[in-house]
Amino acid sequence: MDPHSDSYIDLRSDTKTKPTPEMLEAMMTAELGDDMNGEDPTVNRLESMVCEMLGMEAAVFACSGTQSNQMGLRSHCLPGDELLIHELGHIAIFEGGAPAVLSGISCRTLTGDKGMLTVDTLQGKIRADDQHLCRTRLLCVENTTNAGGGYYYPLGQLNKICDWAHENGLKTHMDGARVFNATIAAGYSIKEVCAPLDTISICFSKGLGCPMGSILAGPKEEIAKARRSRKIFGGALRQAGIVAAACVYALENNIERLQKDHDNARFLAEQLATIEGISISPEETETNLVFFDIHPELGNAMQLSKALHEIGVGIGAMGHTRLRACTHLDISREKIAQVPAAIKEALNSGLNQYQGVATGPYARG
Amino acid sequence: MDPHSDSYIDLRSDTKTKPTPEMLEAMMTAELGDDMNGEDPTVNRLESMVCEMLGMEAAVFACSGTQSNQMGLRSHCLPGDELLIHELGHIAIFEGGAPAVLSGISCRTLTGDKGMLTVDTLQGKIRADDQHLCRTRLLCVENTTNAGGGYYYPLGQLNKICDWAHENGLKTHMDGARVFNATIAAGYSIKEVCAPLDTISICFSKGLGCPMGSILAGPKEEIAKARRSRKIFGGALRQAGIVAAACVYALENNIERLQKDHDNARFLAEQLATIEGISISPEETETNLVFFDIHPELGNAMQLSKALHEIGVGIGAMGHTRLRACTHLDISREKIAQVPAAIKEALNSGLNQYQGVATGPYARG
Amino acid sequence: MDPHSDSYIDLRSDTKTKPTPEMLEAMMTAELGDDMNGEDPTVNRLESMVCEMLGMEAAVFACSGTQSNQMGLRSHCLPGDELLIHELGHIAIFEGGAPAVLSGISCRTLTGDKGMLTVDTLQGKIRADDQHLCRTRLLCVENTTNAGGGYYYPLGQLNKICDWAHENGLKTHMDGARVFNATIAAGYSIKEVCAPLDTISICFSKGLGCPMGSILAGPKEEIAKARRSRKIFGGALRQAGIVAAACVYALENNIERLQKDHDNARFLAEQLATIEGISISPEETETNLVFFDIHPELGNAMQLSKALHEIGVGIGAMGHTRLRACTHLDISREKIAQVPAAIKEALNSGLNQYQGVATGPYARG
Amino acid sequence: MDPHSDSYIDLRSDTKTKPTPEMLEAMMTAELGDDMNGEDPTVNRLESMVCEMLGMEAAVFACSGTQSNQMGLRSHCLPGDELLIHELGHIAIFEGGAPAVLSGISCRTLTGDKGMLTVDTLQGKIRADDQHLCRTRLLCVENTTNAGGGYYYPLGQLNKICDWAHENGLKTHMDGARVFNATIAAGYSIKEVCAPLDTISICFSKGLGCPMGSILAGPKEEIAKARRSRKIFGGALRQAGIVAAACVYALENNIERLQKDHDNARFLAEQLATIEGISISPEETETNLVFFDIHPELGNAMQLSKALHEIGVGIGAMGHTRLRACTHLDISREKIAQVPAAIKEALNSGLNQYQGVATGPYARG
Repeated sequence: MDPHSDSYIDLRSDTKTKPTPEMLEAMMTAELGDDMNGEDPTVNRLESMVCEMLGMEAAVFACSGTQSNQMGLRSHCLPGDELLIHELGHIAIFEGGAPAVLSGISCRTLTGDKGMLTVDTLQGKIRADDQHLCRTRLLCVENTTNAGGGYYYPLGQLNKICDWAHENGLKTHMDGARVFNATIAAGYSIKEVCAPLDTISICFSKGLGCPMGSILAGPKEEIAKARRSRKIFGGALRQAGIVAAACVYALENNIERLQKDHDNARFLAEQLATIEGISISPEETETNLVFFDIHPELGNAMQLSKALHEIGVGIGAMGHTRLRACTHLDISREKIAQVPAAIKEALNSGLNQYQGVATGPYARG
Repeated sequence: MDPHSDSYIDLRSDTKTKPTPEMLEAMMTAELGDDMNGEDPTVNRLESMVCEMLGMEAAVFACSGTQSNQMGLRSHCLPGDELLIHELGHIAIFEGGAPAVLSGISCRTLTGDKGMLTVDTLQGKIRADDQHLCRTRLLCVENTTNAGGGYYYPLGQLNKICDWAHENGLKTHMDGARVFNATIAAGYSIKEVCAPLDTISICFSKGLGCPMGSILAGPKEEIAKARRSRKIFGGALRQAGIVAAACVYALENNIERLQKDHDNARFLAEQLATIEGISISPEETETNLVFFDIHPELGNAMQLSKALHEIGVGIGAMGHTRLRACTHLDISREKIAQVPAAIKEALNSGLNQYQGVATGPYARG
Repeated sequence: MDPHSDSYIDLRSDTKTKPTPEMLEAMMTAELGDDMNGEDPTVNRLESMVCEMLGMEAAVFACSGTQSNQMGLRSHCLPGDELLIHELGHIAIFEGGAPAVLSGISCRTLTGDKGMLTVDTLQGKIRADDQHLCRTRLLCVENTTNAGGGYYYPLGQLNKICDWAHENGLKTHMDGARVFNATIAAGYSIKEVCAPLDTISICFSKGLGCPMGSILAGPKEEIAKARRSRKIFGGALRQAGIVAAACVYALENNIERLQKDHDNARFLAEQLATIEGISISPEETETNLVFFDIHPELGNAMQLSKALHEIGVGIGAMGHTRLRACTHLDISREKIAQVPAAIKEALNSGLNQYQGVATGPYARG
Repeated sequence: MDPHSDSYIDLRSDTKTKPTPEMLEAMMTAELGDDMNGEDPTVNRLESMVCEMLGMEAAVFACSGTQSNQMGLRSHCLPGDELLIHELGHIAIFEGGAPAVLSGISCRTLTGDKGMLTVDTLQGKIRADDQHLCRTRLLCVENTTNAGGGYYYPLGQLNKICDWAHENGLKTHMDGARVFNATIAAGYSIKEVCAPLDTISICFSKGLGCPMGSILAGPKEEIAKARRSRKIFGGALRQAGIVAAACVYALENNIERLQKDHDNARFLAEQLATIEGISISPEETETNLVFFDIHPELGNAMQLSKALHEIGVGIGAMGHTRLRACTHLDISREKIAQVPAAIKEALNSGLNQYQGVATGPYARG
């Protein structure tokens, strides 16, 4: 079914959200200026808001989460430096190799439950000062973890690894593409989460429901460097206020409501747990990402994903047996309630007619 | 005076234009989707429109002219390659060194009247096949020339240098940030201008009046590579249709009206020619960029620029004695008519109180 | 003790070898020319010899193993590409992050016994064709494995993973820094080992006993690209024949004798196995690298390494409890026979006075 | 004729020199160690000698002049930075685009007589602090100028441009590939020449007669960074003392004798001035590079170069009518004396049978 169809239930990603009439209204009435020269009042307002909310010194608007992450990396690291990151981290996998391409940075990937790092994992991973070796300069954490399972970092764990990083001379960057899902789910304040961080990237085009936009926040000096990186990447815009207005709107209106997405996700997880051939532990669904597995004898994740797409439900294959459903602003409880039946229908019809297999985050071969 | 004030006459750049109500309406009602997956109908429509208008095989939306230029470069060149470009070219000067940073490309800068290249200038500038030397791979032209003076490439000259490039194994890329100013001023069709080009970048946030957005058009293979580059640069967006809708609107409504900007520019140039202490040849004002000089004994360009800013007229200093006024969508004939008086006032009041000097495109030192 | 002292037994690395009088004689009498122009007869002879020995089409001399590896990578990969490599691979760890710095390449590090890869490990590690993901382009293997333990690739295993790579559109590169240790230990011909490879880097300044020098061999087109990379890296020399002559000598005289180093290594391993407080399985010592562990209650590897250094034995600490002794051309059986006593002496004297700890390949923190 | 033939008079470059028996003796008897660990006594001695001679704080051995230049650039500049250099500078033209490839650095090329820069040329060439623009960070000078004509920088001029650079926040780097030709010709001390420099690269494989080797000297911090760059470029060697010994020998024995090369060059220039069809002003021949022009009606430079090669004289074509003859250690006055006759012979025989044309430094097209 065409994903643009009204009846299509698009759980492929929270990036699929479309701006609401209220958000559009905010965009269309925004005061604008030339952001290249720092003259866009709406962008300036957004950057100030974010600084105040996060307790950060400075902030800069960016086009996408990939861009604000890469701006952050380039502020902290020089060519030949290495960052420490979970092997499932977005920066390590889903940004097209940008750390190496844009900045000559190597990613040292580490393992860990739920896509999260601990001091135990990190211990011993800082390279000695030796010309053979990269200089280890940055710890990157993702919150919530996407490919890791949609988990939020417990504050204690986050503080411990960031303290460890700082004690060892590293800087800390959070890919906070879904950080408000973390604060809402855990009941943390965003300031608490940001306290141990040097920089954080926040994405507005995921659960917050904006068409585009991201922010990098951190110390003045790093943000000044990031503005230069942004220009080089082609991310410095003119009347950016028109899209920044949506971000301002989202910060004011769309954070608290993430609880609904989490409730829908948990509800979906509980329903899925009742379906024969599907494995899931509903209590593991902490935020808006619902990961579940299909029993291999029924088919693989890619086959089920394709079958569901035909029926009108978008759910992505993330591995051989693993699928991901993502709740968001455009998905009501009513729509969610239709999903279990669709899955049962797909399984009952048999998956043999569908081909392909996914064996890692998007792997082939 | 605050550039946001209604009475400020902002001739600093055509990037200062703000979207009109009609353009906003187009944005507000655009059909949207996730452009990262190619599912945004408005972006797809824009890309198709551009292909058809330009006679190009494929096109990809980008955030800015810098981004689409850099995507183009990266599609044509490998690290270690060199491009040929006028020493005043935007790609060579105003993109933060991006060719070297993003792609390991060297710019070989050439001289030439009006910011334009000729076969005579290019002759002998292709490096031999020798390990000591860069591989010369790309000819970059800018049309209209910005720092070069706002001139358009005569079609004959453009065809000659592109033919020369192709005969010598080079690809051709046009930085068409103001290419529609060229076609309107010269009476060329955009297809004629694009015919000798491998790729062209068109910017929507200049004279076309959009808040942001650019397009790279060219052969399928190069555009496919450019999509990957765009992702790496952080320029791949989600519901990009909301800004692409402004671009569609601009293509349909804002091209022909550039003639008004040109008329205003010529009118301004003629008025300036009558002011004592200002040098300009009005017949040299071909498009919307009005370059003129202040007599050194009255002060320098930076001083006059600062004095005008206080009076409420924005005109940039481009060199020691050189200023640039730029007409655009938000500047009516009435506003233009006030500028000569403002300049006289500034000159009469004396410029000694203002400091600073610009000695090249934005140079210091 | 000063490592330059005659009585110092330097087992820190086979890079410590100094040229023998016969090798020096070969260097001194070599015909020379300007290799930048391909006019050095000795370099040309070396490159031809290597092609013939290895069954490769073309070869190019380089300054070091790091350089020839990086030339190989840059011939196969573009910025944004990813290579598959064992997490202990020299290219991934010990080349200063060069893949990212020089070529914008990401390393995807994999696990596996003995520093070696299998089809099982590789399966599913090729990224899908998606703009979010790197393009997987190259399989890198190291033979023998250095940090992996000094093991050689069984030919069957090597052929299987290279076949898998080729079937999946990857190229294959071997870091053959110690590939002749592999052929001698296993009884393989070098041609057999090279057959499944696209390119191989061979280092002359390890067991082969030369002061410097390396070779990259492979298809003509890749080697032509590598010559350009070499020039850019500053590795194109003039009368390089003077050092290449040592490499020619080594190929003619120093390959078969590696068996002595292996015998010495096995002899040392067997002796170490008899020392209380030292753990080692002598049958695991396949080539010239002897890895062993100190019992943690006696101290750590770094402490033992420092104690031995004072006594006059150079053995490196490779991890918390792990040490590496490396036999080579300059180490006779007599010298080897003195090592066990030295270790006993160090352990008996106690290690408390020595500080520091190594927790991975050269890690701190 | 084969350039290796004894009777071939190879004036193509001073890189063609082969080590003398005395130099070979020094190499073969050098004390060696592992320079990767700083344990090579000969390399250490060379680095110390250079520091003392030049009055520099630290120095690091490199494989080639390209490598030491690029190490210097990378110590001073970050990606996105720009350096100022004469358009004929070796770093700008003859290092394969390495500034962009290895370090993301742009070269801003300037004009000037004799390949040299003046404060007048430099004035106004430092970019303003603006995100559109590169950061101007480094002034590069070449001494003597190679493609510029073999001239040495008058000390007053050198001091003035370096003072200007430092006053404007730039660092200064000298490509001193032939800096001893400059000191000998001008009667300067090397310390005087180095005084205004932050870093200098000295090449040993040109007039100094070594088979390979170069040095970068400068402040401790920059040299420490350069060691890391060297490792990444694959330029960190093992028993490098064997080639460094030649460099030590050259510093002790081959500097003063450069006067002979200069005398030979001036003698050659005077002889050439008497040949009909050849243009040269002998008093312009300051060092060992003799530039002269052929009258276009007789043929072009490439044709004459080819004709001479057949007769047994190597002289390179550097432009349409321009040739370069280079005197050096292996070229006696007797050999020089044969060159004029060879040129007359070539011109008399006619050049029509030879093809090709060089239109810039190695240009084609």
